[in-house]
Amino acid sequence: MAKERMRSVLWTNGGLQLIDQRQLPTEFVLMRCETVVDVTRAIKDMVVRGAPAIGAAGAFGLAIAAKTFPIVASTLKKDILEAVIEAKIMIDAARPTAVNLSWATERVVHELRSMERTATSVMDFVASTLVIAQALAEEDVAINTRLSKFGADVVPMGANIIHHCNTGTLATVDIGTALGVIYECHAQGKNIHVWVDETRPRLQGARLSAWELLRENVPMHLIADNAAGYLMLMGKVDVVLFGADRVAANGDVVNKIGTYKLAVVAKENTLPVYACVPTSTIDLDVLEGRSIPIEERSADEVACIRGVRIAPENCPVFNPAFDITPNRYLTGIITEEGVCYPPFEQSLAKAVTAAEHRRAQASSIL
Amino acid sequence: MAKERMRSVLWTNGGLQLIDQRQLPTEFVLMRCETVVDVTRAIKDMVVRGAPAIGAAGAFGLAIAAKTFPIVASTLKKDILEAVIEAKIMIDAARPTAVNLSWATERVVHELRSMERTATSVMDFVASTLVIAQALAEEDVAINTRLSKFGADVVPMGANIIHHCNTGTLATVDIGTALGVIYECHAQGKNIHVWVDETRPRLQGARLSAWELLRENVPMHLIADNAAGYLMLMGKVDVVLFGADRVAANGDVVNKIGTYKLAVVAKENTLPVYACVPTSTIDLDVLEGRSIPIEERSADEVACIRGVRIAPENCPVFNPAFDITPNRYLTGIITEEGVCYPPFEQSLAKAVTAAEHRRAQASSIL
Repeated sequence: MAKERMRSVLWTNGGLQLIDQRQLPTEFVLMRCETVVDVTRAIKDMVVRGAPAIGAAGAFGLAIAAKTFPIVASTLKKDILEAVIEAKIMIDAARPTAVNLSWATERVVHELRSMERTATSVMDFVASTLVIAQALAEEDVAINTRLSKFGADVVPMGANIIHHCNTGTLATVDIGTALGVIYECHAQGKNIHVWVDETRPRLQGARLSAWELLRENVPMHLIADNAAGYLMLMGKVDVVLFGADRVAANGDVVNKIGTYKLAVVAKENTLPVYACVPTSTIDLDVLEGRSIPIEERSADEVACIRGVRIAPENCPVFNPAFDITPNRYLTGIITEEGVCYPPFEQSLAKAVTAAEHRRAQASSIL
Repeated sequence: MAKERMRSVLWTNGGLQLIDQRQLPTEFVLMRCETVVDVTRAIKDMVVRGAPAIGAAGAFGLAIAAKTFPIVASTLKKDILEAVIEAKIMIDAARPTAVNLSWATERVVHELRSMERTATSVMDFVASTLVIAQALAEEDVAINTRLSKFGADVVPMGANIIHHCNTGTLATVDIGTALGVIYECHAQGKNIHVWVDETRPRLQGARLSAWELLRENVPMHLIADNAAGYLMLMGKVDVVLFGADRVAANGDVVNKIGTYKLAVVAKENTLPVYACVPTSTIDLDVLEGRSIPIEERSADEVACIRGVRIAPENCPVFNPAFDITPNRYLTGIITEEGVCYPPFEQSLAKAVTAAEHRRAQASSIL
């Protein structure tokens, strides 16, 4: 199934191909990046968004840095490494708050550094950069594929699922997290139906998730976020799924604004609520959600929609990008190492350890 | 204070003046109605909206029907009455589901009929139609003024208030219901601040309530509906206020979609939640909320915003206009006869009786 899906971040014909997410859903435009500046600009301008997708794009940006280095007879492997590190600094600065971006580029640099002695030639070293970036992208696909299968196990046959924001192909390299679970359920013939929260203010649900689900022929209806509660009260919802930007050690979840409200109303209606995240999203150093700072974004995201003004001029706006969902509202946290249940302190730590163990055992790069 | 505010429905210079609510907040346009057809079209095209405002506009439409009747020597009072009844049929059909519209026009016709014998001349009878419409509009203002004072008593000094949809000057003849309470608190120097729910899908909060509050200099911030829960969790909210389209005998409230979600999250955060309604909104014949049918509206309200498409073409949409908030989520229901508390069966019935009694005792028309 994953192979049939269009990848948001794809290395093809010697360059990086991205789906231009700014144009969706009205236009489907593919963008090619041939230089480090192209990649930097694509990340900065949000051609590509979603933490794992940005990370993969950044990694491929480093492969481009190596590939486009003007190699002469005197070029050394360390020249390539230096060029890659320079590109990393430029790319990382494109989205300074996106932890996943610098994490991914750091992993590429780290792996490349370890190959400096073993690579047989400069050309071989250059080629390794791309191999590492590819491995990083494939790791993301593999993780989300495992996560999706664990997630599908907890979704009942014929379930009506509410989904918030965008967590699919467009936010990751391929299958996605919460939308990955939904795709897996659909592939398994579970006869599911999705209520797609439009996800104000940036409308990632209406613009991106709706587009993905229609493309995958998953039965769905778009709703205003306000309608989610009514659907629950009417008995039209069976499970709530979303992703997360960061999960604290105690299971508190930081995710797109509106997640908390959704989870509270779901709990009030005794519905199961799952956050779907790769273990890399779990931050064991952060003990609880309220120590995570919440980014406040521009007033125009609320006051204007696609360039059209919907509020009075000079209207004061408060626009937090994320909110915190305390762990008590979550039934479980679905990861690539299985579903974590309360008490989350133990189950999340166990999942993170399992993931580290798997990575240490893997014979491939990364 | 009420006198300084611009009325959404105003009889002036021998005609009906409306604020064109379709143009707000980007443009402030006043529209004059000189004929029954003008009034019918203004109601149908939603130049004027909000149940009490529509009712008053309809009543003034009947005054126009009488005023524009071509009087000759042979004209009888019953000719005027017939013209008014004919106009009522035309105007009522403009918003067939708006109970308040036909209720208001029916009250004008009923009152006029009772004057057919007592009016001293045809001209006197024509003039009476306007007097009745004026009285109906003033009754709305008086009711909301009383309601607002009762409401202000339950709002603490310095309160942060969340308000959903539009319930102000634009939805009523003048002061409004929930926004009326807010205006009264502001006038009393209670140092309040309002978080204005934008109220997707139709954005009555962003377009209308924000515009009204800015005009009245009430401190406020516009928020995406999704941000309301986060604000509550952060301790930034003290009370939740909204209006209602219908209140059942048991206190279940039917109001703009999203009210239920807001009320549930408020209760979870132990915040007081009040519906603000004139007693005419309480329907003692309806025992509970779930027997009230919920209107489903067009997909375009969600998929397009002010003409701009935000969802894929042919995206299925579910768009309920209202939801039901079960009585257990309400702290109280604020009416012009005082604040009703649980058990609502008793308190609401008492408020309705008190209002009927007041009307029966009133010496003025209506």
